[in-house]
Amino acid sequence: MALSFYDISVPVFVRGLGQLSHVLDKGLAHAQASGTDPAALFNARLAPDMFTLAGQVQSASDASKLGTARIAGITAPSFPDTETTYAELQARVAKTIEFLNGVDRAGVDGAEAREVVMKVRGNELKFTAERYLLQFALPNFFFHVTTAYDVLRHSGVPLSKLDYLGRF
Amino acid sequence: MALSFYDISVPVFVRGLGQLSHVLDKGLAHAQASGTDPAALFNARLAPDMFTLAGQVQSASDASKLGTARIAGITAPSFPDTETTYAELQARVAKTIEFLNGVDRAGVDGAEAREVVMKVRGNELKFTAERYLLQFALPNFFFHVTTAYDVLRHSGVPLSKLDYLGRF
Repeated sequence: MALSFYDISVPVFVRGLGQLSHVLDKGLAHAQASGTDPAALFNARLAPDMFTLAGQVQSASDASKLGTARIAGITAPSFPDTETTYAELQARVAKTIEFLNGVDRAGVDGAEAREVVMKVRGNELKFTAERYLLQFALPNFFFHVTTAYDVLRHSGVPLSKLDYLGRF
Repeated sequence: MALSFYDISVPVFVRGLGQLSHVLDKGLAHAQASGTDPAALFNARLAPDMFTLAGQVQSASDASKLGTARIAGITAPSFPDTETTYAELQARVAKTIEFLNGVDRAGVDGAEAREVVMKVRGNELKFTAERYLLQFALPNFFFHVTTAYDVLRHSGVPLSKLDYLGRF
């Protein structure tokens, strides 16, 4: 059984986005049930110079669609960060999943040696697609999904790690 | 170029633990420079029923050593959660990296179809080693590394995402 570059990338992002959608649902349900203003939760953050919950969701969307586009050598759709409601955030996640599910497996499998060039804070970085996925795209994606979860937990939303990991 | 099961697992954990050690160093330095009690930071958490910073580090250690042991079919060393200082936490991270660096590449490569059985909250779950790595071990590991970072950020430690991602 050979490992597939598609299998270690696209479905991992899709699963993580599904769990992100799930914890967002729980966050909104908690706000509604407890009489908390959903807008306060939407704009909650862990530090003044960190992204809000909404920003973490937008970043998880970007991390997965740009990560996948870079390894596949394709262009990701542009999603401006204009969401102001939970429904819009959920639509953003759903659009991201839709894009990822439409990525051609054959365009990813075998692409692990493809050159990926990206700019980070003014520096041009060169990776193989495999190194980019393992050292940048996946850790970056999980950072934003986890931080969205952490913002919700810090705001009192009852979640457990299985809400993040998902069902097996 | 074929993907290697070792390359998509062990070095990913080792890199993440190195960054965890780096953000812990920055946390301690910030506490010392700002006159904050390091013990308060050590025991800081994002919610009353979440792990402290120390607990997140212990969990990242466990996630990586148990994750690797399960996919390699070996036994991980037992590290009791007795750390009470930053130096002890850093030693825990270093011991975990030492264990991971000693894992035989040949025992991991080709093991992607190995059966992994684990108990989660009373349920016995069966995975292939590949599915276990991608759906459980890696997301779980990044959860704890990110949450350690988030606790530090929430406590006022100046960090940027590149402290988490590392140098390229």
